[in-house]
Amino acid sequence: MNTHSPDTAATRPSVHLAKGRSKRLRAGHPWVFSNEIEMTAEAKALPPGTPVTLVDAGGERLGVASFNPHSLIAGRVLSRRPDDTIDADFLAARLRAALALRDTLFDAPYYRLVHSEADLLPGLIVDRYGDVLAVQTNTAGMERLLPDLSQALDAVLSPRAVVLVNDSPVRKLEGLEPENRLLSGEITGPVELVENGCRFVADLVDGQKTGWFFDQRDNRAFVARLAKGRRVLDVYTYAGGFAIQAAMAGASEVLAVDRSDASLALAQASAALNGVTIATARAEAFAEMERLAAAKERFGVVVADPPAFVKSRKDLGAGAKGYRKMARLAAALVEPGGFLFCASCSHHMPVEMFAEEIAHGLHQAGRTGRILRLAGAAPDHPVHPQLPESAYLKAMALQLD
Amino acid sequence: MNTHSPDTAATRPSVHLAKGRSKRLRAGHPWVFSNEIEMTAEAKALPPGTPVTLVDAGGERLGVASFNPHSLIAGRVLSRRPDDTIDADFLAARLRAALALRDTLFDAPYYRLVHSEADLLPGLIVDRYGDVLAVQTNTAGMERLLPDLSQALDAVLSPRAVVLVNDSPVRKLEGLEPENRLLSGEITGPVELVENGCRFVADLVDGQKTGWFFDQRDNRAFVARLAKGRRVLDVYTYAGGFAIQAAMAGASEVLAVDRSDASLALAQASAALNGVTIATARAEAFAEMERLAAAKERFGVVVADPPAFVKSRKDLGAGAKGYRKMARLAAALVEPGGFLFCASCSHHMPVEMFAEEIAHGLHQAGRTGRILRLAGAAPDHPVHPQLPESAYLKAMALQLD
Repeated sequence: MNTHSPDTAATRPSVHLAKGRSKRLRAGHPWVFSNEIEMTAEAKALPPGTPVTLVDAGGERLGVASFNPHSLIAGRVLSRRPDDTIDADFLAARLRAALALRDTLFDAPYYRLVHSEADLLPGLIVDRYGDVLAVQTNTAGMERLLPDLSQALDAVLSPRAVVLVNDSPVRKLEGLEPENRLLSGEITGPVELVENGCRFVADLVDGQKTGWFFDQRDNRAFVARLAKGRRVLDVYTYAGGFAIQAAMAGASEVLAVDRSDASLALAQASAALNGVTIATARAEAFAEMERLAAAKERFGVVVADPPAFVKSRKDLGAGAKGYRKMARLAAALVEPGGFLFCASCSHHMPVEMFAEEIAHGLHQAGRTGRILRLAGAAPDHPVHPQLPESAYLKAMALQLD
Repeated sequence: MNTHSPDTAATRPSVHLAKGRSKRLRAGHPWVFSNEIEMTAEAKALPPGTPVTLVDAGGERLGVASFNPHSLIAGRVLSRRPDDTIDADFLAARLRAALALRDTLFDAPYYRLVHSEADLLPGLIVDRYGDVLAVQTNTAGMERLLPDLSQALDAVLSPRAVVLVNDSPVRKLEGLEPENRLLSGEITGPVELVENGCRFVADLVDGQKTGWFFDQRDNRAFVARLAKGRRVLDVYTYAGGFAIQAAMAGASEVLAVDRSDASLALAQASAALNGVTIATARAEAFAEMERLAAAKERFGVVVADPPAFVKSRKDLGAGAKGYRKMARLAAALVEPGGFLFCASCSHHMPVEMFAEEIAHGLHQAGRTGRILRLAGAAPDHPVHPQLPESAYLKAMALQLD
């Protein structure tokens, strides 16, 4: 049940942009910063997430945004048409457009269905596992729309279950608490998905609750091409994505490392689903790489796709060194002519710096080589043209001499 | 016949780095700049392209480089091992390593076999069309090694023909004249190649002589995924790469535009080889896009992969505006929900600037959308980790609202 009064263009409050501060918005940017807004007492008193009509200093209505007076990103554009009503029908139309794109891109219903601003639904993430959906509402505006969203998802996809996976730390910036629960339907145990022809299980309700990282789909396919006949090490295997696809592609041997027993159990369950065998080791990645190096182990392919080392701007220095060390330790384990895959999902790590740190780590390891691929996330994680900084994933594949 | 005396470590001249100027070289960079070298009368007198032993100010031998006293990039590292002999055997070993990588990456022998510094063969480009090779020697050092190279190519690949395609403008910087000729073997008429399951003809000896651009292989595959059931426009079609792969993927209609009759004839020959029909129009891309817009034509996919607009640093401003205009004109032809693919092969155009110009062009056309893919060249065009600026190809695919 929606506890807010329904949005209409006529009853919706207005928020005014300061004089001369509408240029970026007019140029297509999807955000309005708090210092661009006439922060009146009325504006300040609006509950976080309220839909508002954006009005420039000359009185022109520029669109509808969800408004949060307590956030640096005060306005997030929902529509450029000020007369639109923000309701379940509005959301359903956006969902249908996002679905049509994925239908063009993919043969099977396992992907990120909605990727926030780029899909014109700021703050919303929806991952699709067939008839099960995992939803994140990362802004007060989208949180407020949850009842309408639930209705829209039912209308467009008739899902068996919708799981709310709201543990992202970005929710704090919007004044939102973590909240993981079933939004609708029923679900018991892990869900299945297919990626690049391999079957996987992901756990949305227990364990690490983060499900599957669809963003590495194309990078996993690329690494699998390199794996045939080679010994493969995957040091942050999580649910076994790279490891199992390498095994399916004909790797001679696969060792998957993770510090979580729950993740390794998922990886083994998926390996069994595909009829391949992988070895697993529960360990911290850096320690395990040092141990393997001391034991003179070498691999034809080493994959290092860690959780974000840089969680905020102030972590950048330490995080950058982390990627350098990761590259150094991983490079030392690659046999001559073998391959190294490194990734960073840190929003705050620029791609040039990532590339420099990897090059630095290679040099420290005394290795040379060539970059075969420098890529971002798969196309179901589109990027808003005015938010190039939101392209968080950086992945590099190299051959080493 | 090699007219130079054979290289040996014992007889090779030395070139000395200035004090404190060996750091970058030691860190793995493959170039030595002229201001880092003790430019003695002896050094200045060395014929361009001479192999030299690089020696630091302390007398340590750091490797072998080809040396050109008249070029800003005075030294290009051939080997980090100063005792290596630079001869046909040396080149053959490098070629075998490059071949092994391509054997891992590809099922069929159509690719860039050697991509200069990244394949440890500075100045050398080799494109492979089955048993026909197209070779570019873009530095005085590699030009001097041509007889050894010819022998090495025969030893490793036994090609039917090797064609020298030396018309790159970068040769001028090395004091080299254009030179297109048969280096060995025999060849009559166009050669065939297969890319993403489609057959193509490329002309290495007549016409535009540039052969095939293998760098767009993965981008063509991506665009083909979008083309099914859609009307496709390819405005710089050249030999029909994007157009024909779109037709093969089930495009409802394909219009391929180029200003060269010879290119359109090649494209039509390739279309016939694959049993698909494409329409062609001989026209300048900008003018044709304006004509199509005036005629209210719309397409589900528009491809704009032009020759470099930025040929030197001083062209950057004008070239950047060219990409903006291209994006504006192309975006106007994309139907709602359709796709736009833009590329730049300009070395001097940074990827951030390219992305900005595309975003700007979209805005000028009054269009919004989302970036699905931002990619570089295919992995047979590797990048040296210390030369990230050599990643010349930028390609962006967007969906427009």
